[in-house]
Amino acid sequence: MTYYDEELAAKGREIQGKLWGNLAAGGGGGMTGAALAPDFFKLVQQFCFGMFWGREELDIKYRSLVTVSQLAALGKYEELKGHLRGALNVGWTKEELIEVMMQTAVYCGVPAGVNALNAAAEVLMDA
Amino acid sequence: MTYYDEELAAKGREIQGKLWGNLAAGGGGGMTGAALAPDFFKLVQQFCFGMFWGREELDIKYRSLVTVSQLAALGKYEELKGHLRGALNVGWTKEELIEVMMQTAVYCGVPAGVNALNAAAEVLMDA
Amino acid sequence: MTYYDEELAAKGREIQGKLWGNLAAGGGGGMTGAALAPDFFKLVQQFCFGMFWGREELDIKYRSLVTVSQLAALGKYEELKGHLRGALNVGWTKEELIEVMMQTAVYCGVPAGVNALNAAAEVLMDA
Amino acid sequence: MTYYDEELAAKGREIQGKLWGNLAAGGGGGMTGAALAPDFFKLVQQFCFGMFWGREELDIKYRSLVTVSQLAALGKYEELKGHLRGALNVGWTKEELIEVMMQTAVYCGVPAGVNALNAAAEVLMDA
Amino acid sequence: MTYYDEELAAKGREIQGKLWGNLAAGGGGGMTGAALAPDFFKLVQQFCFGMFWGREELDIKYRSLVTVSQLAALGKYEELKGHLRGALNVGWTKEELIEVMMQTAVYCGVPAGVNALNAAAEVLMDA
Amino acid sequence: MTYYDEELAAKGREIQGKLWGNLAAGGGGGMTGAALAPDFFKLVQQFCFGMFWGREELDIKYRSLVTVSQLAALGKYEELKGHLRGALNVGWTKEELIEVMMQTAVYCGVPAGVNALNAAAEVLMDA
Repeated sequence: MTYYDEELAAKGREIQGKLWGNLAAGGGGGMTGAALAPDFFKLVQQFCFGMFWGREELDIKYRSLVTVSQLAALGKYEELKGHLRGALNVGWTKEELIEVMMQTAVYCGVPAGVNALNAAAEVLMDA
Repeated sequence: MTYYDEELAAKGREIQGKLWGNLAAGGGGGMTGAALAPDFFKLVQQFCFGMFWGREELDIKYRSLVTVSQLAALGKYEELKGHLRGALNVGWTKEELIEVMMQTAVYCGVPAGVNALNAAAEVLMDA
Repeated sequence: MTYYDEELAAKGREIQGKLWGNLAAGGGGGMTGAALAPDFFKLVQQFCFGMFWGREELDIKYRSLVTVSQLAALGKYEELKGHLRGALNVGWTKEELIEVMMQTAVYCGVPAGVNALNAAAEVLMDA
Repeated sequence: MTYYDEELAAKGREIQGKLWGNLAAGGGGGMTGAALAPDFFKLVQQFCFGMFWGREELDIKYRSLVTVSQLAALGKYEELKGHLRGALNVGWTKEELIEVMMQTAVYCGVPAGVNALNAAAEVLMDA
Repeated sequence: MTYYDEELAAKGREIQGKLWGNLAAGGGGGMTGAALAPDFFKLVQQFCFGMFWGREELDIKYRSLVTVSQLAALGKYEELKGHLRGALNVGWTKEELIEVMMQTAVYCGVPAGVNALNAAAEVLMDA
Repeated sequence: MTYYDEELAAKGREIQGKLWGNLAAGGGGGMTGAALAPDFFKLVQQFCFGMFWGREELDIKYRSLVTVSQLAALGKYEELKGHLRGALNVGWTKEELIEVMMQTAVYCGVPAGVNALNAAAEVLMDA
C-alpha cells in the first residue's frame, strides 16, 4: 500500500508549483516511468519535495542551486534540464547558471562540463 | 589469440539461453560493437556467463536480481532493459521489478530511480 | 520543522528491527553524522524504511539483496557492511553473499569486486 | 615547463584567501601529493581559482555552494571538508550546510547523504 | 572577464591540431554548448590543451591513450568518439584501440566495455 | 565448481610476474578478501590476466597505462597503488606517471587528480 499524507503531499505540490508552475500538476509529466509506476511519483512528491525541499532551514533558491549542481555532477541531463527551468523560476539568471555548468568542468572534469552545457543550451539559449 | 574452451562456452550459452532464449544465439545481437569486436563477445560468454553466472553457489534467479539492481545503480539502461527481459524469464514478476526500480531511488538517488523506471517501462509496460 | 508520522516511523522501525535487531534502536548508531543531524535519521527511518522497504510488493529478503548489490556497485563500503549483516539476518547465507560480491566484479569491474570482498570479509569471515 | 602567469596566480590566491585565509598559503597544505607534484598545485591555483572561481558572473558565495554540493555528489570527502570550512568563511551557516548534506541523500542516494554528514560532522559540529 | 593569453591559446591550438586537424578550428565544433558558452571553450583550449596536454613530460601519443581510457571509464561516449579519432591521428591503430575498449570491461565492468565498443564502432569500423 | 584451466592460469601468472614479480605469487597478497573468497582470485588470474592482458594485440606496457588511467578515473586508490608499482616495472617513469595523475584532474575533475596524486605519492616519491 502506498503511503499518502495529504498535508505532506500539499507541501510537496507547493514546492513543485514554485519550480515549474502548472507543468508540475501531473507529478511526472508525460514520462513513461510515470505510467508504469504512478505510486512512485506520489511518494517522490511527499518525501523529496514535502519532507526535504519543504524544510525552512534552507531557502528554495539555494536548494535549486544545490540540485542543479548535483545533477550536473551525476550526469543526469534530462533531470538537469527540468531543474534548470526551475532555477530560472526561483530567481537564478541565465548567466549565473552558465557559470555553474562551467565550474562543473573543474570539479567533475571537462567532459562533464561540456555535456552539462550542451544539455543546458536547450533550456538557456533563449532564456 | 582469443581464448576458447568449448565446455566453458557451452556453460555460458546455457545460461544465456535461460535468460533470453533464442535471442541469445547471436552473442551480442545486432549491436555495432559486436561487429567491431566479435572476439570480445566470445570472451564475455565464457567468463561472464560461464565462469560466474554458471556457478552453483547462487541461483540464477538471484543472480538476475543482483544484475538488474547493479545496472540500475550504474545507469547502464540498455543493458538494464536486456536484463529486465531476462529477469521476467527466470521468474520475477513485473510488480517485483518495479519495486526494485523504486528502491533504486532510495539508494542511488531519485534521478537514478526515475531513469530506471523510464527504461523499464519499455520492457515491463506490457509484461 | 521535521516531518513526523508515528505510524510511518513504526513501520520503519519494524523493518530496521528485522535487519539489525536491537542495534537499530539508535537510528544511526554511533555515527558522528547522526549527532550532527538527528532530524535526518528520523526522516530516513520514515521514507527509506517506512515508505519503501515496508511495501509488500517485494519481500524484505529480496530488498536486502537489491540493497547489498547496489551498495557494492556504488562503492559505499561502510553501508555495505551494515547491510551484509542485515542480509544474514533475513536469510541469505555467507556463501550466497560471497557470490554476489564476486558477480560485482563482472558488472562493475574487478576493482569493485575486490573492494567489496575486502569489506565483506569483516562481516562474513566468521559468519 | 609549467605555465605561470603572475596576474592569474594572484587572482587565484585572492580567492583561496577568501575561502581559507592563511591556510591556503601553502597551495596544497600538508598533502603528500603536493610534495610529489608541486607544479600541479601551481596550475590548479591558476586555472581552477584564477580562471573559473575568479570570474565575476557568479558570486563566490554561490560558487562555494556549487562546489560543496558537487563534492558531496562525487563522494570526495576530504575535499568536501576543506570546502565546508571555506563555505563557513564566505557566509553560509552551519544549519544551511547541514541541509545541503541532507538534500544530497535525495538526489545521490541515502548512503551518499549519510557519508556526507559523517564527513561534515568533523567540520560543522563545533561551528 | 574571460582569461586570454595568446601564447597559451596557441599551444592549445597546436595540440588540438595534432589530434583533429582542421576540425579543431572552431573550438567546440557544432555543439550547442559552444554557442551558449563560447568563453568556456576558449578557457578549455588554454587550460586543458595548453597547460596540461602541452607539457613535454608525457608524449601526446600516451596522453591520448590516457584520455581514451578515462573517457571509456567515465562513460562519456561522445567525447570518447572524438578522442578515438584523435588517437588514430597520433599513431594508435584500430586494433590497439579495440583492445583498450575490451580491457575497459575488466576494470569498469562488462556493460562499460560493451557501451565503449558500441561507441567506438562508429569511429573504428572503417578506420 | 570453480573453473580452472592450467594453460590460462599460467598465462595469467606470467603477466602478473611481469607486473609485480614474486609479490604476485599469492594471487591477492595479504588481502582479507582473498582469504574470504580464494576462488575469486583464481578466476581473476585466468580471465583478467590470462584472457585479456595476455592478448598480443596490445603491448603490456600500454595495457598498464590504460589500467592506471582507469583506476584513477574510478577512484580505486588501493588498486591504483598496486598498478603504479606494476607500471614502473614495465617501463614507465615516475615523471610520466605523475603527468597521468595530473591529466586525470582535467578529465575527471580536480579532486580526482588530487586524490590520485596523494595515492601515487606513496609509490612514486622514492621511485
